[in-house]
Amino acid sequence: MVPRKAKNKLRIIPLGGLGEIGKNMTAFEYEEDIIVVDCGLAFPEDEMLGIDLVIPDVTYLTKNYEKIRGIVLTHGHEDHIGALPYILQELNVPLYGTRLTIGLVENKLKEHNLLRTTERHNVTQGETIKLGNSFKIEFIRSNHSIADAVMLSIWTPVGTIIHTGDFKVDYTPIRGESIDLHRLAELGKKGVLALLADSTNVGRLGFTQSEKMVGLRFEDIFNKAQDKRIMVATFASNVDRVQQIINAADKFKRKVAIIGRSMVNVAKTASELGYLDIPEGTLIDVNDVKRYNDEQIVIIMTGSQGEPMAALSRMAASEHRQLEIKPGDVVILSSTPIPGNEKTVSKVVNELAKKGATVIQEDTHVSGHAAQEELKLIHALVRPKYFIPVHGEYRHLQKHAELAVEMGMPKDNIVLASVGDVIELTRESCKITGTVPSGQILVDGLGVGDVGNIVLRDRKHLSQDGLLIVVMTLERESGIVVAGPDIISRGFVYVREAENLMDAARVVVRKALDRCETKHIVEWSQIKTIVKDDLKEFVWQKTKRSPMILPIIMEV
Amino acid sequence: MVPRKAKNKLRIIPLGGLGEIGKNMTAFEYEEDIIVVDCGLAFPEDEMLGIDLVIPDVTYLTKNYEKIRGIVLTHGHEDHIGALPYILQELNVPLYGTRLTIGLVENKLKEHNLLRTTERHNVTQGETIKLGNSFKIEFIRSNHSIADAVMLSIWTPVGTIIHTGDFKVDYTPIRGESIDLHRLAELGKKGVLALLADSTNVGRLGFTQSEKMVGLRFEDIFNKAQDKRIMVATFASNVDRVQQIINAADKFKRKVAIIGRSMVNVAKTASELGYLDIPEGTLIDVNDVKRYNDEQIVIIMTGSQGEPMAALSRMAASEHRQLEIKPGDVVILSSTPIPGNEKTVSKVVNELAKKGATVIQEDTHVSGHAAQEELKLIHALVRPKYFIPVHGEYRHLQKHAELAVEMGMPKDNIVLASVGDVIELTRESCKITGTVPSGQILVDGLGVGDVGNIVLRDRKHLSQDGLLIVVMTLERESGIVVAGPDIISRGFVYVREAENLMDAARVVVRKALDRCETKHIVEWSQIKTIVKDDLKEFVWQKTKRSPMILPIIMEV
Repeated sequence: MVPRKAKNKLRIIPLGGLGEIGKNMTAFEYEEDIIVVDCGLAFPEDEMLGIDLVIPDVTYLTKNYEKIRGIVLTHGHEDHIGALPYILQELNVPLYGTRLTIGLVENKLKEHNLLRTTERHNVTQGETIKLGNSFKIEFIRSNHSIADAVMLSIWTPVGTIIHTGDFKVDYTPIRGESIDLHRLAELGKKGVLALLADSTNVGRLGFTQSEKMVGLRFEDIFNKAQDKRIMVATFASNVDRVQQIINAADKFKRKVAIIGRSMVNVAKTASELGYLDIPEGTLIDVNDVKRYNDEQIVIIMTGSQGEPMAALSRMAASEHRQLEIKPGDVVILSSTPIPGNEKTVSKVVNELAKKGATVIQEDTHVSGHAAQEELKLIHALVRPKYFIPVHGEYRHLQKHAELAVEMGMPKDNIVLASVGDVIELTRESCKITGTVPSGQILVDGLGVGDVGNIVLRDRKHLSQDGLLIVVMTLERESGIVVAGPDIISRGFVYVREAENLMDAARVVVRKALDRCETKHIVEWSQIKTIVKDDLKEFVWQKTKRSPMILPIIMEV
Repeated sequence: MVPRKAKNKLRIIPLGGLGEIGKNMTAFEYEEDIIVVDCGLAFPEDEMLGIDLVIPDVTYLTKNYEKIRGIVLTHGHEDHIGALPYILQELNVPLYGTRLTIGLVENKLKEHNLLRTTERHNVTQGETIKLGNSFKIEFIRSNHSIADAVMLSIWTPVGTIIHTGDFKVDYTPIRGESIDLHRLAELGKKGVLALLADSTNVGRLGFTQSEKMVGLRFEDIFNKAQDKRIMVATFASNVDRVQQIINAADKFKRKVAIIGRSMVNVAKTASELGYLDIPEGTLIDVNDVKRYNDEQIVIIMTGSQGEPMAALSRMAASEHRQLEIKPGDVVILSSTPIPGNEKTVSKVVNELAKKGATVIQEDTHVSGHAAQEELKLIHALVRPKYFIPVHGEYRHLQKHAELAVEMGMPKDNIVLASVGDVIELTRESCKITGTVPSGQILVDGLGVGDVGNIVLRDRKHLSQDGLLIVVMTLERESGIVVAGPDIISRGFVYVREAENLMDAARVVVRKALDRCETKHIVEWSQIKTIVKDDLKEFVWQKTKRSPMILPIIMEV
């Protein structure tokens, strides 16, 4: 693939996944063509109170809608496909992905009533497609914690770009073959202009273990668990992990029940598409579990991250409709807590232990992301001219840049970019030349983008100290108070214990109103400000708290 | 110490620190005497919105005030002394502790104006005191991540009890001597009735490294940092760590500035009492930092846990009054994130990296708590008849019990207790026989215990979806609406973007009021319920959110 003469520059525009974990999305633009790689969601930060999920700001794509030739997907995880239902409502563009990826996307489209209107294309690992006049995309077989993952080789007029997506190097994968190192070597030999590579695990030394290790561990645990009931919690999307639990169950002649909505959905799709082999007669309904002895049962479920609504947490809290934990149960947590979830996971573990279950968390999980030596292998095979670390917080991107420098890449050939940066590439240069609108769009219930900083600031304020509402009715002409002031509080203090405080607060408000009257202040906004300031000061003196104070004036 | 004939039972009552991390406090009661070991605070759980800290419920002690002979302190960390200022306001009892411990307590008492009224007694490691008729307490030299830590050997009429407090076995401590293993061996030989031991690190294999290892690492980093400015963030209370930073600074001829209120306070107290050696001329004021070159400076500060108000976070956010991070700065985080703080720490690290600082987190910290092999050593030396694991979540206590069983202790001789349990001991038995009131008292500003479940539930609700206030004025006699209904929202939706929604909501309320009028419903509570239900349903349909809805009726 000798590039044709390139008159223009290739623009790479990350819209998510740089300087953050999740919401991976990158646009590639050349002349009249744009292709987009992935369209993921992120989970809300702690301070995003009440927010369900976060998606990328795609203002730039909306403005260039007619140029977009399609969204190309690397694999079926939420942080790569989860924003599609929201983005497709604005941008009706075709999707390209491998069979399992598209299968999982279709589940989402169905839920959001978008299946009929969305064009989907299945591709196979190794296939190449052409999008617009400027792009050819090859789907390279890869390994990750979900089957059918691909890296992308994107042929552009300025040169070949390789985007790794999420990956690891697994020489003994559960399904399919090992990552196509031969193809990467071949491309590296022909010459790769730029590499965009996963930085998630750049902080880890060595090589990430094969998924197969977890299977051996399962067999070991199953072997020792003897007459116990076994439960395994893991990520719904980790189809290969589920396969290994089923394999172990089969080996030890146990029936399998799958619970948790997302787990059931993914297992159904994966098994229909041939990515999950469930031996005839193995699967049973959760309601039939009681018809078997403990040593005949394995339960696979969601909740390994301590998610409060997932099956495992509900069982730990004795709130599950169908199942309860009993003494002797063996519970395997087959995942590592995602940063931020450590405490919730601990809580679930403590509850399970109190119920008499044996909880096993050690060596029951391997990562889906490449550690340092795998990253080095990819850098060595691809030997790109330019390098753009992606998929990671700033410290990960920086560390990945250091790794590239260690391997001999000139510092100036590495671009540490942020979301919204426009990276322009020619055959001879790669640099940030500008920015486009970008950022986080918050999804809360049905609302997409209607919760912003002011709303979040108010939620934060309310969550810390609650609120005091001061309500009064004034006579239109005279400004005389004809009803109230009443004070109502929520989330501030338990009122029965603080009656004196509330009585005193009413006196403070009344005095403030008297002062307004004496001074002939009749402007509502002024009256409100005076009442608010006096009450705020009083409450702070008495309690060292600052509830939100809302004075409301009505007029008759 | 042959126990005199015991007619009665010894009661051990944990009031905090079992099934949780923090707020360590245990009462020992025999006939007319009670002694209390430690009086710590805990940091609020995520769901305790707006809460500053948590202290033990001491209702049982308040009811038995006249029996209390004193509070005996094992060391000066917040989770062992932090509740004193609150508890001492209710229970004015004498305090006993080693010099550094009492020194740190006195700082707190000063702040809370309790210094004059509180009786304090300094003891030295190795000393024995008598409290009441039933207790003698020996303070055994120990090691922890703060100097002057002790284990307690509590002589009671039924036998000797050993309480380890927090400890590790450090053969090469920074200050003072290694833990008094000889004394523990001696006591073990004479016969120990029960052991209460720290379970925090029971999940870790092997031996916790010596504090000295961190000093070697500091020297290594300082040696390589050459011409860079060095900043080290750590826990204010880890005086030995601060000493090692100062030692490294001294070796490399750097001046030291200490910043952060708690760091300055602890360093002052420790140095006055002789627990921190600062070579003449080493310490400089933070305002003088700019008068030196980078290679002449070390800054010691708080904020290693990403606490938003601490020095390091403020610098990372460019919000510190006196100092800012500049490219090339070497920032050492000398602590491991406490579970729950991982994300905030990451955030600070990312910000520092973006500012060009080199952040070093690897091998810059050792724990202050005993790992498995150290725990085994203590069990082996003390060889108690009964064992009560303390200081840890349920899973820790359980694991510690398993460790004891592995070492040959009969399962029946181990008591897995919870906070509030009454454990009764004779020479021949140790079992839980009842409970006393116990739990968590929440401190919010000046309020101690005035924020309970209802207030927290409201704060949670407000934090997730905000609120809608519906306010209207009715005529007393007729019940006719003379003003309003007005709808005010906070933390719900950005109003300018949702004007249509708010207009429609007003229509819903008006219709609800019309319905009330038609049906001659005049009871305010009924009207409020109808308005609330209708609005709630409408808002849920339109937004899939459930803000708090507060209907307020005024009367003229």
